[in-house]
Order: sequence, then structure tokens, then C-alpha cells
Amino acid sequence: LRLGLPEVIYAEGKTPEQVAEIFRRMADRGGAVLATRAGAEAWNAVKAQVQDAEYHALARVIGLRERHAATLHLGPIAVVCAGTSDLPVAEEAAVVAEYLGVKVSRIVDVGVAGLHRILSQREALAEARAVIVCAGMEGALPSVVGGLVAAPVIAVPTSVGYGAAFGGLAALLGMLNSCSPNVTVVNIDNGFGAAYVAAMMLRAGAKSA
Amino acid sequence: LRLGLPEVIYAEGKTPEQVAEIFRRMADRGGAVLATRAGAEAWNAVKAQVQDAEYHALARVIGLRERHAATLHLGPIAVVCAGTSDLPVAEEAAVVAEYLGVKVSRIVDVGVAGLHRILSQREALAEARAVIVCAGMEGALPSVVGGLVAAPVIAVPTSVGYGAAFGGLAALLGMLNSCSPNVTVVNIDNGFGAAYVAAMMLRAGAKSA
Amino acid sequence: LRLGLPEVIYAEGKTPEQVAEIFRRMADRGGAVLATRAGAEAWNAVKAQVQDAEYHALARVIGLRERHAATLHLGPIAVVCAGTSDLPVAEEAAVVAEYLGVKVSRIVDVGVAGLHRILSQREALAEARAVIVCAGMEGALPSVVGGLVAAPVIAVPTSVGYGAAFGGLAALLGMLNSCSPNVTVVNIDNGFGAAYVAAMMLRAGAKSA
Amino acid sequence: LRLGLPEVIYAEGKTPEQVAEIFRRMADRGGAVLATRAGAEAWNAVKAQVQDAEYHALARVIGLRERHAATLHLGPIAVVCAGTSDLPVAEEAAVVAEYLGVKVSRIVDVGVAGLHRILSQREALAEARAVIVCAGMEGALPSVVGGLVAAPVIAVPTSVGYGAAFGGLAALLGMLNSCSPNVTVVNIDNGFGAAYVAAMMLRAGAKSA
Amino acid sequence: LRLGLPEVIYAEGKTPEQVAEIFRRMADRGGAVLATRAGAEAWNAVKAQVQDAEYHALARVIGLRERHAATLHLGPIAVVCAGTSDLPVAEEAAVVAEYLGVKVSRIVDVGVAGLHRILSQREALAEARAVIVCAGMEGALPSVVGGLVAAPVIAVPTSVGYGAAFGGLAALLGMLNSCSPNVTVVNIDNGFGAAYVAAMMLRAGAKSA
Amino acid sequence: LRLGLPEVIYAEGKTPEQVAEIFRRMADRGGAVLATRAGAEAWNAVKAQVQDAEYHALARVIGLRERHAATLHLGPIAVVCAGTSDLPVAEEAAVVAEYLGVKVSRIVDVGVAGLHRILSQREALAEARAVIVCAGMEGALPSVVGGLVAAPVIAVPTSVGYGAAFGGLAALLGMLNSCSPNVTVVNIDNGFGAAYVAAMMLRAGAKSA
Amino acid sequence: LRLGLPEVIYAEGKTPEQVAEIFRRMADRGGAVLATRAGAEAWNAVKAQVQDAEYHALARVIGLRERHAATLHLGPIAVVCAGTSDLPVAEEAAVVAEYLGVKVSRIVDVGVAGLHRILSQREALAEARAVIVCAGMEGALPSVVGGLVAAPVIAVPTSVGYGAAFGGLAALLGMLNSCSPNVTVVNIDNGFGAAYVAAMMLRAGAKSA
Amino acid sequence: LRLGLPEVIYAEGKTPEQVAEIFRRMADRGGAVLATRAGAEAWNAVKAQVQDAEYHALARVIGLRERHAATLHLGPIAVVCAGTSDLPVAEEAAVVAEYLGVKVSRIVDVGVAGLHRILSQREALAEARAVIVCAGMEGALPSVVGGLVAAPVIAVPTSVGYGAAFGGLAALLGMLNSCSPNVTVVNIDNGFGAAYVAAMMLRAGAKSA
Ligand SMILES: Nc1ncnc2c1ncn2[C@@H]1O[C@H](COP(=O)(O)O)[C@@H](O)[C@H]1O
Ligand SMILES: Nc1ncnc2c1ncn2[C@@H]1O[C@H](COP(=O)(O)O)[C@@H](O)[C@H]1O
Ligand SMILES: Nc1ncnc2c1ncn2[C@@H]1O[C@H](COP(=O)(O)O)[C@@H](O)[C@H]1O
Ligand SMILES: Nc1ncnc2c1ncn2[C@@H]1O[C@H](COP(=O)(O)O)[C@@H](O)[C@H]1O
Ligand SMILES: [Mg+2]
Ligand SMILES: [Mg+2]
Ligand SMILES: [Mg+2]
Ligand SMILES: [Mg+2]
Ligand SMILES: [Mg+2]
Ligand SMILES: [Mg+2]
Ligand SMILES: [Mg+2]
Ligand SMILES: [Mg+2]
Repeated sequence: LRLGLPEVIYAEGKTPEQVAEIFRRMADRGGAVLATRAGAEAWNAVKAQVQDAEYHALARVIGLRERHAATLHLGPIAVVCAGTSDLPVAEEAAVVAEYLGVKVSRIVDVGVAGLHRILSQREALAEARAVIVCAGMEGALPSVVGGLVAAPVIAVPTSVGYGAAFGGLAALLGMLNSCSPNVTVVNIDNGFGAAYVAAMMLRAGAKSA
Repeated sequence: LRLGLPEVIYAEGKTPEQVAEIFRRMADRGGAVLATRAGAEAWNAVKAQVQDAEYHALARVIGLRERHAATLHLGPIAVVCAGTSDLPVAEEAAVVAEYLGVKVSRIVDVGVAGLHRILSQREALAEARAVIVCAGMEGALPSVVGGLVAAPVIAVPTSVGYGAAFGGLAALLGMLNSCSPNVTVVNIDNGFGAAYVAAMMLRAGAKSA
Repeated sequence: LRLGLPEVIYAEGKTPEQVAEIFRRMADRGGAVLATRAGAEAWNAVKAQVQDAEYHALARVIGLRERHAATLHLGPIAVVCAGTSDLPVAEEAAVVAEYLGVKVSRIVDVGVAGLHRILSQREALAEARAVIVCAGMEGALPSVVGGLVAAPVIAVPTSVGYGAAFGGLAALLGMLNSCSPNVTVVNIDNGFGAAYVAAMMLRAGAKSA
Repeated sequence: LRLGLPEVIYAEGKTPEQVAEIFRRMADRGGAVLATRAGAEAWNAVKAQVQDAEYHALARVIGLRERHAATLHLGPIAVVCAGTSDLPVAEEAAVVAEYLGVKVSRIVDVGVAGLHRILSQREALAEARAVIVCAGMEGALPSVVGGLVAAPVIAVPTSVGYGAAFGGLAALLGMLNSCSPNVTVVNIDNGFGAAYVAAMMLRAGAKSA
Repeated sequence: LRLGLPEVIYAEGKTPEQVAEIFRRMADRGGAVLATRAGAEAWNAVKAQVQDAEYHALARVIGLRERHAATLHLGPIAVVCAGTSDLPVAEEAAVVAEYLGVKVSRIVDVGVAGLHRILSQREALAEARAVIVCAGMEGALPSVVGGLVAAPVIAVPTSVGYGAAFGGLAALLGMLNSCSPNVTVVNIDNGFGAAYVAAMMLRAGAKSA
Repeated sequence: LRLGLPEVIYAEGKTPEQVAEIFRRMADRGGAVLATRAGAEAWNAVKAQVQDAEYHALARVIGLRERHAATLHLGPIAVVCAGTSDLPVAEEAAVVAEYLGVKVSRIVDVGVAGLHRILSQREALAEARAVIVCAGMEGALPSVVGGLVAAPVIAVPTSVGYGAAFGGLAALLGMLNSCSPNVTVVNIDNGFGAAYVAAMMLRAGAKSA
Repeated sequence: LRLGLPEVIYAEGKTPEQVAEIFRRMADRGGAVLATRAGAEAWNAVKAQVQDAEYHALARVIGLRERHAATLHLGPIAVVCAGTSDLPVAEEAAVVAEYLGVKVSRIVDVGVAGLHRILSQREALAEARAVIVCAGMEGALPSVVGGLVAAPVIAVPTSVGYGAAFGGLAALLGMLNSCSPNVTVVNIDNGFGAAYVAAMMLRAGAKSA
Repeated sequence: LRLGLPEVIYAEGKTPEQVAEIFRRMADRGGAVLATRAGAEAWNAVKAQVQDAEYHALARVIGLRERHAATLHLGPIAVVCAGTSDLPVAEEAAVVAEYLGVKVSRIVDVGVAGLHRILSQREALAEARAVIVCAGMEGALPSVVGGLVAAPVIAVPTSVGYGAAFGGLAALLGMLNSCSPNVTVVNIDNGFGAAYVAAMMLRAGAKSA
């Protein structure tokens, strides 16, 4: 059913050996492979077994592109976040989207407390077929971005913050109650899921045209 | 920015007179108009002022189509729910989507406790460019549907249930933790938002093709 | 200690007779009197006893100005909210502030999903010595306003919204985690408290100059 | 009252020496003994004192079978889970059930996002007199299994997942709200309790026949 | 698959006419029918259409027995509760169990604050093949009963209580953490579910003998 | 006001040196001194400075008795708990009570799942002027004890348990909803507070006689 | 066991007829009888059947004193609250205590925001053998009172407040974390329970003297 | 817009090298710089690069004063807390306020359980133009202080406490429900934010005079 989509390993809670072993087995079948939530040790174990794999340290993603496969040129989408703390989640989204054949434009350092920064990116946003917005603390950025674009916004609450941030709960609730009607939400820190949904939208859209 | 999209009134907490007054003012501008969460009294007030308006009682939506506007033929999407209790939310999604120019295929009465029913709808699901799934109680239906389609799934938790359903919280949490990666989530009972996001996806997809 | 500040009655849960009786007793002492959360029936009972009292229906506040007292001319402050649903709380804040001797500039209908509206009010905001921002749902407005002003922002979460708004909890958490460092928070729907704090700030500031 | 049932030690929070000492004392009485939540160090301490004890590393269970006791042949039951992360809890359930005299059929790797896998196990499920289903994240598997069998389903939410999984809370709430009426629930990660209840059912059923 | 089990209507949120209409349609097929959460008005509507239906007011259950069907004689089970407030839930469990062919022994007025009452029922409890225990407030009764029987205990938290009972949450959490290992739990106020599980256990046990 | 009561140091979060320094300073004044939540390192630091101090390892309490002070002979009270896991909290309560001049009778290993054990202690309970009951998991023991005595019961929820025990929340809620009217509650794991309240009761009672 | 204590009916959720019937039956046995949470209708039903019963409207308590019984003269205790909203709970405590033979001194209108009022009551507080403190909102009063007396403080959180008061939860948590070590807590709005515990303390103290 | 205010780095979750690098870059621009939540290692990295920086260990703040800048003499404000555990948060507030040009008077060791201590500070409080109150556990101190001053109170809940303190939630809720109307609240442990708001008040007040 999902021809062309990579196999994805969730590396959290698996030993480096387990990750490497599953990765190699999937790579042998010839398609694309991804491992998310993968630390340096998992990467060391994988690269010893799968020559062409690549590591994206900030995103904590190990990837292997499909050989001889015609790349789908979907998108572009924008991946947006406010600051350095949200970057790992944003990068997980961006890197996964790229492996799924989607062109990504990264827009970082655009918090709601300094509107000029997000406003200065309106052109880049206007080109996006979908926008992924990662935000912690009060999670207000998706509402602001939602008002600036005529495209779906996939909001990713992050666990960034302290105290009454409650590990991402404040951002999650904020996003679910967004006053911008084009906003949907995935799980806290789930950059992978946001990328996957964005790719699905673009593929389904491409088919339907 | 959002040319062609109807103006939307959230009728909850407004008096019938207020709803009718806002509705008429918007109708006078010539575009499409929608009022969601509108009861029979709001409808009575609106129809006295705006001749061509229509009422969708189960969905609690009052609508007015744009005159002389070329209908966009987007979609189709599927709107899926398990039972009679979730129908009002599903109908809000379906009716709003139709006003937004999207063809809708309704698939009701397909709970996860009787898989043959959802399995017998696989063909209809395969045609959908996006699927809206409304579910209360444990909210498991989006995960099951997510595994059956290669399209984005917009999950709408409903406040159906009692006790530990906690007004839709159980369904909401379930959907946010879906093991199907193509699932995103909107607020509890927010059929309107799900339809809006689906329409946005199809429009952005259409542009991008 | 608090010379010049009116006595304040919290009318919720008191009978109209009780409110009127307390109000009259306080009025007899000659100072200013306020009753908040006062419905039409409480108002009817009070006006029968205290001739000079006034009713602010939207704010649900009954007030009596101090006779012969020199009005303090503090402020101005701005009271900001996004839409019609938040208006009662915003009006409670604005009316109470005025009884406390503060000049108020009302800025309504400025949601974060349409930034041009709040941006077009920058001048009015710049004049404010303090800003009260009332917002329900995701409660993102105080962060945006906080970034536009060099003054303290007092955020009032409102119970507007449904589902995962959880009666104002989503807005409250959002505001507590605001990325604008000049934001403080009062209880859900507590327009009165926000006005009181703003007046205190201005009085303390006036003294200190 | 509970003749024939093993003594059970909850090893969490006890030192290896304490576990070994209690285990040996119980073993000396001649009946079966179990220790759950037992790590490698507890096992090393126990095997130095009780020769015939066995260790089930994945389940983290140390067991000693009753000598000369006629094995009860109850069941079979099925123990079902979706993936590798839920395996430790599923194995705790399976191993404990076996020590309680119940035949167990393990069905793993059957998530709700790929229904063909659980559907291909319908025969094995049909034979089961009770089914234990362990699932984390959205916890939807018990509802699906509940619809496939005419037997009681004991659902075990696991703490697998992140973000809005809230340590198993999402799965727990989902299971409590199951739309399959044959589902009951035990505590998060409580594989032991599920096995115990299943054994109780079969024993009580055997008596009643 | 579930031959012999009645069809069950959840009457909450349906109009009396809807309940009566569904009830009659099901009755026409000749099997047993149940409607739970059915008030007096639903009952009036049903009895006008289905002659042989019966109403159990305290349990709020409308039932119709299968004609010519050989009654299964399963059980007995015990249904236990502490006081008058929990009686409606206990009666829902007891009445539904009886329609499912299970013999029921009712043990009421046995709270944990007066142990002699539950201790004086030990004989009746010993005969039970399964025990359903309904309790609100602190929900301690299932643990105590669990220690007195060698049978599975199905605990039903009720929404009885105030303040920190939080609508049954305190009882629910208590039961999930029961120190009696033979306790499982269903949703708050879910007497129906408890009866269904008990019947499933006895049927599966009967088959397996 | 509190003549005769020891000074109490809460050692958690203080360095061993800080604890020792404060302890010595208080000891120099000649009265009794207590430090709770004190680990081995705090004890080593204290004993180097205060010769007559004593350490109660299980209770994690360091104590120094008042020199030449006539011991008050209050009580007796009973300190009750179910198992080894709750012992540290129970011992904190018992040891602190003894330093406060109260005679303590320890009753351990009496869970609600085996009623004979608590019933066999009825005589010891009957003598108690107040009973402190420490319990984790479902926290049902205070209700049972409350029904057996004509004295106040001070319930201490403990953080013992896992999953839906939520760090003592389940036990706390259970105790607050106790159906025994003679039960009051202190904070989770607060053995110290329970002892202090018990001593206060006995002192106030002694005065009043 | 509890000779001399009245029987207590919890009237909430019982019909006036049920309350009257139970009340009369208990009264016939000759001892004292109490009904709490009793509205005007329950009172009308009771007084028609039991001549000597009395109604305490603010406390919502119906009482009947024991005939010919020597009144125990326990106490005095103080019942303290901040304002009119907490009065019904405070009165429930005070009236129940009086029926239990305890002398009560009422101290009302003493909030923590105006310390002079509570400080001016220090003498009355010093005489109390136990103090019941009822407070809603932030629930700070028990801590302040706890620091002023050398007697046990029984804190009753009330459901007074709005927004983040969450029906008494804020007050409950505050009281459980009181920095005054002589504070214990009962359920939200449970004036009855506080009175019962206070009476138990005094009786147990009396015995022990 | 914010001329004269220092740049602020949130050091938590940044490597010492990152903090030092950002700090040096900002220092090069010539204005004041602050880093909050900075441990000893961050400090070591910063001081190697920026000669004039200073470290406030208890506050965990690294600061650099603006060269040649005329110091603003705002205030004074008071920073109040109850005990040693709250000191780090109070010091973060005090030190940040001083860098923002505000004179600070520290009032520590004034808990609500010993009112004489806070009452003895009434003079110092009376001089304050704003008061920052840091408190954990039940968070009652801001209400008491709020009643003693005619100035705004900025309440900082701290994560000090255990059990039902729930990481500062109890204090947060208490402060939001303060019965003193001059109280506003910032996030748990957010001493920085409280100082920033206080400085903003004084600056806005100064302008308005
Ligand atoms: N059912 C609904 N749920 C959530 N948002 C809605 C709903 N219906 C309308 N809206 C949003 O509410 C806005 C109008 O709100 P109002 O101005 O209060 O009528 C619209 O722009 C929509 O984005
Ligand atoms: N994994 C487990 N989860 C919950 N309860 C358990 C578990 N293992 C053992 N128990 C229960 O804990 C009791 C023993 O506790 P203990 O005396 O602390 O070793 C046994 O009787 C069991 O009922
Ligand atoms: N206001 C109250 N709050 C909590 N428990 C109460 C209250 N009033 C009475 N009770 C308890 O409820 C029991 C009677 O319950 P019932 O049999 O339902 O009338 C009495 O024995 C009391 O322990
Ligand atoms: N302790 C703190 N708590 C909350 N916000 C802070 C804190 N310290 C600095 N900030 C804010 O965090 C921003 C800098 O964040 P960053 O760019 O990640 O260093 C500053 O502008 C401040 O508004
Ligand atoms: Mg939305
Ligand atoms: Mg997903
Ligand atoms: Mg802030
Ligand atoms: Mg069920
Ligand atoms: Mg169990
Ligand atoms: Mg009680
Ligand atoms: Mg205490
Ligand atoms: Mg306030």
C-alpha cells in the first residue's frame, strides 16, 4: 500500500546492536530506511554495518536513501520554530520530510514575542504547501503562522520549558485550542509524525490533481 | 488571502438575534456564510432575514452558498464514525467540508469492536484524498483507519462516553498517541476544524500539482 | 492603609437582598463602592436602595463613585481582547479600573490569527503604562502584546472555549509559560484582579517618582 | 484458601539479599515461589541460595516450581501485544500464568495499524479461554481483540510511549473506555496481575463446571 | 460469534422514540434485547411497542428474554456493594447478569468501615464463581473482598461521593492499585460491563471444562 | 508557645555540613533537636559535632533528647502499616512521636487483603488514644482501621506503588474519601506531620482534662 | 463501640421521604440522630414525623438530641472561617460538633489578607483544645492559625472560588502542604468529618487523662 | 524599543561553550548581559572570555554591567521568601532586578506559620514600590504580604516541597486564588520573570509620572 515510503525504526529503548541489526536487515531489502531518536552509539553501530547510511546528529536521525529510486519532488513545505531549544524537534521533522521526498524550507528563530521576525518570512511561508510549526512553552506560534498562510499547519508541541509547561502539556493544550482553523496537532516532540503527515498530504494531493 | 472561503460564525454563546444580524451582514457582501453550533432558535432568526440560507439540523450548521461562484470540486474525502452518538460531530465535519467545496463520502457505523464493517469499506476509503475520523470513548478508530489508507487522517475526539472518558480526554490522548503515523488531531468535538484542515490540504495540494 | 480605594463586594453566591444591604451600608460611609459579578436582579435590589449607583451590564459591575473626592488621574492603561466572547471579562477589567481612577483605552477584536489588527493598534499600546490582555482558548495574545510594548502585561485567561480548553486551563497554562518576560497572570476570568493590580502599579509608581 | 498458588515476592525496592532471603524461606516450605520485577542482581542472589530456581530475564521473573505437585492444566489463554517495547510486560504475564498452571499461547507483533496481522491470528485467539492484551501508546488493541473473541479480555496498559502518553495514562483511559464490553483493566505495566486474574477465572470456571 | 447473547442498546442520549424503535426492530428478530441507562420515558415508549418487555427501575434496564431459548444456568456470582447510593450501579450489574443467564446473589450494605457485615457474608462469597464489587468514595471494598475469595473480582468504581472523589476518579485509582491480585476494573458506573465480563468468564470456563 | 517541643530540621536539600551546623547550634540551646529526611552522610556530619545525637536509619531521623527534662508520658498511640515498603514512613512517624514524648505501639504487616492480621490486633488498637495509618497503593487501610477504633485516625498516604498509583495520589484521594468519619489526612509520605498532630492532640487533651 | 455517638444520615441524593423514614426509625431507638446535607424539603418531611427534631438551615443539618442522656462537656474547640461564602461548611462543622457534645466557639470573618482580625482572636484561639479551619480559594488560613495555637488544626477545604480554584482542589493542595506541622486535612466541604474527628480527639484525650 | 535593558540568555540546556560564546558576542556590543540558570561550568567558560563578568552562585546568574551607562535608580522593591529552600529563586529575582537598575531589599525567613517575623518587617515592606514573594509548599505568603502593603505583589511559586506539592502546582494554584487582590503570578521558579515585570512596572510608572 505504501510503496516508496521508507521503513522507520524507533530507536529509543533499543540497544545499538538491535538498531543496527534491524537497520541492516531492512537495508538489504533495497528500500529507504530511517531510524529516529537515535544517539551517537546507535549511529556507530549502524555505520559499521550499512556503508551508505548517514547521520543527522541534531535531528538524531539515521537515514539511508533508496538506491536507483526516482526521487519524488513534493512540496515545498516550511518547518518553523522559535529558538535553539526547539531545534532538535524541528530538525527531526525537516530531515524525515526530506527522506520522504519533500523539499523543506527551514525558518528558525521566529518567536511570537518579536513579530517582525516571523513577518519578515511571509514570502517563504506563502510558497509552502504545508507548514510544520514546532513550539514549546506557551505554544502560540502555530496560531500566528496559521493566520499568515492559506495552507494546513501541523503543530508540534515540544517539551521545552519548565514549571507550568508540564513537559509540553501547556503547548499541547494551546495548539489544540488554536483560534486559527487550519491548525492540527501531533504528539509532544513528534517531529517525525508531523513530517509523515505532511508527506501524506502532498502525496494524496498529487494523486488527486 | 483566503479568497473563496466562507465567513464562519461560531454561534455558541451568541443570542439568536446576534447570529442572525451577523449572518445577514456577511450575506450582504455576496460570499458564502456558515454558522456552526447553531440551534433551532438561531436558525429561526436567520431564516427570517436571509432567504436562501439552509439548515442542517443534525450538524447544527446554517449555511449560505456563494451565488454565481464556480464550485471548486475538491476531494473526495471520507468522514468516518462509529455510531449514532458521534454523528453530530461527523455531520458538522461533512457539512462544513461540502460548503468548502469538497466532495464527501460518509462512512458511519464502523466501530473497532466489529472490524468487518470497517474492512468492508476499504474501497471507499482508498478513494479518499483525506479521511476525517470522529470517535469518542477510547478513540481507537483513527489508528485502525490510519493503517488502511495512504492518506492523511484527521482525528476528531468526541465528548461521547462517561466516567473515565472525562469529556473526550481519553479519546484525545488516544489519538495523540496513535501508532499510525499519518494521524493528526484537532480539539474535542471540533468537526468544523477537521473539515477546514482537510479543505486546506486539498487546496494547497491542488495548487502544488 | 488603602485610603481612596473603593470597597468591593463579590456578588456571586449572595442573594440580591444581601448585595443591596451590604452595598447600602458601605455607601452610607461615604466612600466609593463596587459590586462585581452582579446580575440584573442584584442591580434592581441595589438601585432601590442607593440612588446614585450605576450598572454596567456587560461587565456585570455595580458602582458608586466617591462624592466630593478628587479623581486620581492615573494611566492610561490599555485593556485588550480578541473577540466578543472575551468582552465581559475585559469590560469587568476596564470598568473596575475606571472606578479605581485609571484612564482606560479599550482595544477589542484583535486576535493572533489576524496580526494586522493588533499591529494597527501599536500606537495606542505604546501610550499605555500597563496593558491588561484577556484571552480564552489558547491564550496567545499576551505573548504577542508583550513583545509590542515596554510595559507590564497583566494576562487574564478566560473560560471561553470548549473541549481541551478545560474551562480556561489551556489559556492559563499558556500565559504562565509566556515567552514575553513582561507578562504576569491572574486567575481565570478575574478581570477585577487585573484592574486592581494595574491600579496598584500606577499608584506605587506615582508615589515613587 | 489459596492452596496450590505460589507465594509471590514483589522484588522492586528490595535489596538482592532481601529478595534471596525471603525466596529461600518460602522455598523451604516446599511450595512454588515467584519473584516479579527482579533484575539480574536479585537473580544472582537467589540462585546462590535456591538451586532449582529459574530466571526469565525478559519477564524479570524468578520462579521455583512446586516439587511433586500435580500440574493443573488450565487454559489455554493467549497473551497478545503489539511490539518489542511491550514484550517485557507481556512476558511477565505469560511466565506468571505458566507458573500458575495455565497453558499460554503468545501472539506478538500485532498492532492495530496493520490489521492483517491480528486477523491472521483469529484461530489461535478462538481457542483461548481468556486473552491478556498488553498495549502502550493509545492502547487500542484490547478493543480490537475484544471484538474478535467470545472470551474475557484482560487489558494491561503499558508505560510505553512518550509525550501525551503520560506514562501509560493514555492507554489506561483508552482501555477503561473500550467499546468492546468484554474488556477489563488492571494497573499500568501489571502483567503479574493480569496473569493472576486469568488463572483465577479458569480455576473458578473449572470448579463451577 | 456471540450466539445467545442479547443485543444491547445504550439508551443515554437517545430519544424515547429512538430507543423504542431500535428495541422493537431487534425484538422482531426473536432474540433477547436489553436497553441500559433507560429512564421512565424510554420505558413507556418501549412497552407501547414490545409487549413482553420488562422494566427494572432501580437498574434503569429494559429487558426482553429470548423466547423458547434454553436458559443457560451459569454462576452463581455475587454482586456486592456498600450502601444505598451504589445500589443503582449494582442493580445494573445484577439485572444484566441475569439476562445473560447468570445466577446472582446480591450482598448489599457491607462497607469496609464495619467489617463484621462483610465477614458475616463469607459463606455466600465462597460459593461465587466471580464477584462484582461496586464502590464509590475511596473504593476500598474490592481489595477487602478480593482477600476473602478465591475467585476473580470485577471492581466497578461508582461516581458516588463529593469533593476529592472527583466523580469516581478516587475509587477508580484505588481499585487499579488494589493490593489483592485477583482484582480487575471496568469504567466508572459501568455495571453493565462488569456483568458482561463475568458472563464471558463463566461461558469460557464452561467451554473449557 | 511550644515549650518542650523539639526544634525540627528538614534535611532534604541541605548539605551534610548545613544540617550539622544547624543541629549543633540548636543543641547548644539545650533543648531537644530532630532532623528528618536525613541520610547516612548527614548523620556522619552531625555525630562529629553533637556527641549525644542518635540515628534511626530506617526512619532517616537524627534525634537528640532534651537533657534533664522530665519526659511527658503521653499516649499510647498505634502506628500501623501494611508491609515492608511503607516501613520507612511508618518509622518516621513512630520515632518522631517518641521524641515528642508519646508511647508508640507498632503494628506492621497488616494489609486489607488479609483481614485476619488486622483483626488479630484489635486489642492493641483499642488501647490507642490515636492511630497513625501509613499506606500506599490504594490506601484502604485507614478506612478499615477507622471502623475498628473509637479514636482519631491520622492517615499518611505513601508514594509506594507504580503506574496509576501516581506517586501516592491514588492513596491520598482514597484516604480523603474515607467512609470512616474519624479519618484525617496529611501529605504523602509525611510521617513527621502525622506524629506531630498526634502529639498535639494528646497534649491538648491532657490540658483539657 | 461508639456508645453515645448519634447516628448520622447523609441526606444528599436521598428523597425527603427516605430521609424522614430513616430519621424516624433511628429516633425510635432513643438515641441522638443527625442528618447532614439536608435541604428545606427534607426538613419538612422529617419534622412531620419527629416532633423534637430541630433544623439548622445554614448548616443544612437536622438534629435530634438524645433524651435523658447526660451531656458530655468536651472542648471547647474553635471553628474558624474567613467569610460568608465558607459559612455553610463552618456551620455544618459547628452544629455537628455541638450535637457530639463539644462546646464550640465560632470565629468568622478572619481572612489572611487582613491579619489584624485573626490576631485579635488570639485569646479565643488559645483556649481551644482543637481548631477547625474552613477556607476556600487559596486555603491559607489553616497555616496561619496553625502557627498561632498549640493545638491540632483540622483543615476543611471548601469549594468556594472560581477558575483555578477547581472546585476546592487549590485549597485542598494548599492545606496538605501546610508549613504548620499541626495541620491535618479532611475532604472538600466536609464540615461533618472535621467535627467528628475533633470530637474523637477530645473523647480519646479524656479517656487517656 | 527596550533601550537600556540587558540581553538575557537562558543557560539551561545550553553547553558551557554555547553560553560563553553567546555571552561574549552580546558583551561585544557594549550593553549589559545576563545569563540565568547558569551553573559553575557555564561560569568558568564565560569568565575565560569576558573579564568583567560576575557570578552570583546562589542565584545561578552570570552578569555584566553596562559600561559608562548612567544607572537608573528605580525602586526600591522588596524580595520576600520564607526559608532557605526558596532562597535560590528569591536570589534569581533579586540579582536580576539589581541588574535591571532596581534597588532591592531582601526579606528572608518570614513564613506564615510564624507571623511575628513578617509583621516585624512591616516598615521595610511599606517602603517597597513592588514586592516579589517567592514561596513553595502551600504558597500562602503572597496573600499575607498582599494584605500588608499598598503595592503590587508579584508571586513566584517555587518547586519546593514534596508529595502533594506536585512540583510547585499547589503553590501556583494557591497564588492564583489569592484573596489579596493585588497579587499576580508568574511561572513556577521564575524569579527572572518576576524581576523583569517589577522593573517594567517601575519604568512605566517613572515615565507616566
Ligand atoms: N465549531 C467551531 N469550533 C471552533 N472554531 C470555530 C467553530 N466555528 C467557527 N469557528 C471559528 O470561530 C471564528 C468566528 O468566531 P466568532 O467571531 O466568535 O463568531 C471563525 O473564524 C472560525 O475560525
Ligand atoms: N508485579 C507486581 N505488581 C503488583 N503486585 C505484585 C507484583 N508482584 C507481586 N505482587 C503482589 O505483592 C505481594 C507481595 O508483596 P511484598 O510482600 O512486598 O513482596 C504479593 O502477594 C502480590 O500480590
Ligand atoms: N456530610 C457528610 N460527609 C461525609 N460523610 C458523611 C456526611 N454525613 C454523614 N456521613 C457519613 O455517611 C454515613 C451515612 O451514610 P448513609 O447511610 O448513606 O446515610 C454516616 O455514618 C457518616 O459516616
Ligand atoms: N530564567 C528564565 N525563565 C524564563 N525565561 C527566561 C529566563 N531567562 C531568560 N529567559 C528568557 O529567555 C530568552 C532567551 O532565551 P534563549 O534565546 O534560549 O537564551 C530571554 O529573552 C528571556 O526572555
Ligand atoms: Mg483547529
Ligand atoms: Mg501521529
Ligand atoms: Mg513571564
Ligand atoms: Mg468494558
Ligand atoms: Mg490487581
Ligand atoms: Mg473523613
Ligand atoms: Mg502538616
Ligand atoms: Mg488576585
